[in-house]
Amino acid sequence: MPLVECVPNFSEGRRKEVVDRIVAAAEAVAGVKAIDRSMDASHNRAVVTLVGEGERVAEAAFRAIEKASREIDLNQHQGEHPRIGATDVVPFVPLEGATMGYCIRLAHRLGERVGRELGIPVYFYEQAALSPARRNLPDVRNIGYEKLRDAVQSDASRTPDEGPKAALHPTAGATVIGARPFLIAFNVNLATQDVALAKEIAKKIREKDGGLPGIKAMGFFLDDLKLAQVSMNVCDFRATGLERVYDEIAKLAAAKGVEVHESELVGLAPRAALGTQTASHVKLRGFDPTKQIIESLL
Amino acid sequence: MPLVECVPNFSEGRRKEVVDRIVAAAEAVAGVKAIDRSMDASHNRAVVTLVGEGERVAEAAFRAIEKASREIDLNQHQGEHPRIGATDVVPFVPLEGATMGYCIRLAHRLGERVGRELGIPVYFYEQAALSPARRNLPDVRNIGYEKLRDAVQSDASRTPDEGPKAALHPTAGATVIGARPFLIAFNVNLATQDVALAKEIAKKIREKDGGLPGIKAMGFFLDDLKLAQVSMNVCDFRATGLERVYDEIAKLAAAKGVEVHESELVGLAPRAALGTQTASHVKLRGFDPTKQIIESLL
Repeated sequence: MPLVECVPNFSEGRRKEVVDRIVAAAEAVAGVKAIDRSMDASHNRAVVTLVGEGERVAEAAFRAIEKASREIDLNQHQGEHPRIGATDVVPFVPLEGATMGYCIRLAHRLGERVGRELGIPVYFYEQAALSPARRNLPDVRNIGYEKLRDAVQSDASRTPDEGPKAALHPTAGATVIGARPFLIAFNVNLATQDVALAKEIAKKIREKDGGLPGIKAMGFFLDDLKLAQVSMNVCDFRATGLERVYDEIAKLAAAKGVEVHESELVGLAPRAALGTQTASHVKLRGFDPTKQIIESLL
Repeated sequence: MPLVECVPNFSEGRRKEVVDRIVAAAEAVAGVKAIDRSMDASHNRAVVTLVGEGERVAEAAFRAIEKASREIDLNQHQGEHPRIGATDVVPFVPLEGATMGYCIRLAHRLGERVGRELGIPVYFYEQAALSPARRNLPDVRNIGYEKLRDAVQSDASRTPDEGPKAALHPTAGATVIGARPFLIAFNVNLATQDVALAKEIAKKIREKDGGLPGIKAMGFFLDDLKLAQVSMNVCDFRATGLERVYDEIAKLAAAKGVEVHESELVGLAPRAALGTQTASHVKLRGFDPTKQIIESLL
């Protein structure tokens, strides 16, 4: 059974009852669980994490998008975060038994259905993007609803991939649907108070500055532990896994005579990212597979 | 306009007139060109390279599959190469303006149509695979037509992704459809006759032995040039490009006091694999963009 995660973002971060109804619509699909949700009032935005068998999760996502299109009027929406839709962005993420190709197919089919049945224009992004210009979410979304409403009529580069081609939905705007690898939040704490070293290592390992594929990293000082930390998003664990990035950090620290104290996983990780030796190899603190491996929750 | 390459393999390498009719069926779609074809009598197999706008190429591939299903009877077919279908395998490859996600969608849609309209079971492979067990072509195909005919009825792990679920097509068998990056054949000639060095470098750089992602490599001696050669398939140029693999070879050769004589491209490469400086950087011999950049041929 192919398992997937789906993390829809909705443009509602203040009215809890609205988000409750959207989540309830998704969870009405048997076998689908909302394992997490968060709301942010200043961004005026909610993020929900759905997991289950792929086809069922896609059905749940459709029902959530439909519900959001009735509950949220983007013309009334204000918030600091860029957005173009009541349901703003919907990524599918492969878990055990699924491939990226499977998630791309879920994304494309959901997009086709959202366009046809709900009349909401859809753009495909990241791994599901149909053109190179739509790979990066900011390039698709950062124009915002108000400007996109005009641009979609006049600018061919803004023509949606599915659904109405020349007009946004009058209240729900447009939705960005796609597929991407699981994002793992992973931190490595160094046995030093030298935050400059953590910042230097972060710069060396992050992809943006020529480091490891899929790694985003920053250096921090942890007030509670009195330690310097390299804090990361591991955005493509098949390209650069936890052991690889840990080894690189340990090597760079050792060159300055500093050891690694421990590492920590923030939230969940997919089973495929953690081999039998990974937790001990990377000195993972308090790792509990039954609570931190996402497939164990199902 | 998204451009793609499609490289269908047919189980016919002896009757030229049959391959001619299959190619003619594909080229009947306006805007689609068959830029290459090869036949192998002992493998009893033909490989055709189609290029053009994505949707048109997919239409051409469909017509070729339909024609092959009428012209080739797999029950009468013998050859050394493993195969399961009259049209055996159909990969889509992104060129300028296209993404892997676009090619995956072409593959999934073509597969659905081949199953429904032609009654031929379809398996998706590589980037279009729906399950991890079908990523590698040999795992899907090497069972061969005769054994798959029985297995599809009794072994759930062999159930097709599209089309009839429990019986192969009586004459056309089954077809494997997918998406993959462009394969670049790239050789680096060393200024030495020491073939052992070429073999040693090949072993260090190839992915199989822990080297660079997407690189397949072997060492040879070139009788005509009296030089040792590292001969490669660059299977994922976005993961490891020509300059990167060239630099690694040059570094390993230099460590033994050997210089690179020149490199050569065998056949075509996509524009995205060759930056403005690439040809000079890798000392590419006799490079002609108008003949070797695949998009220039259209």
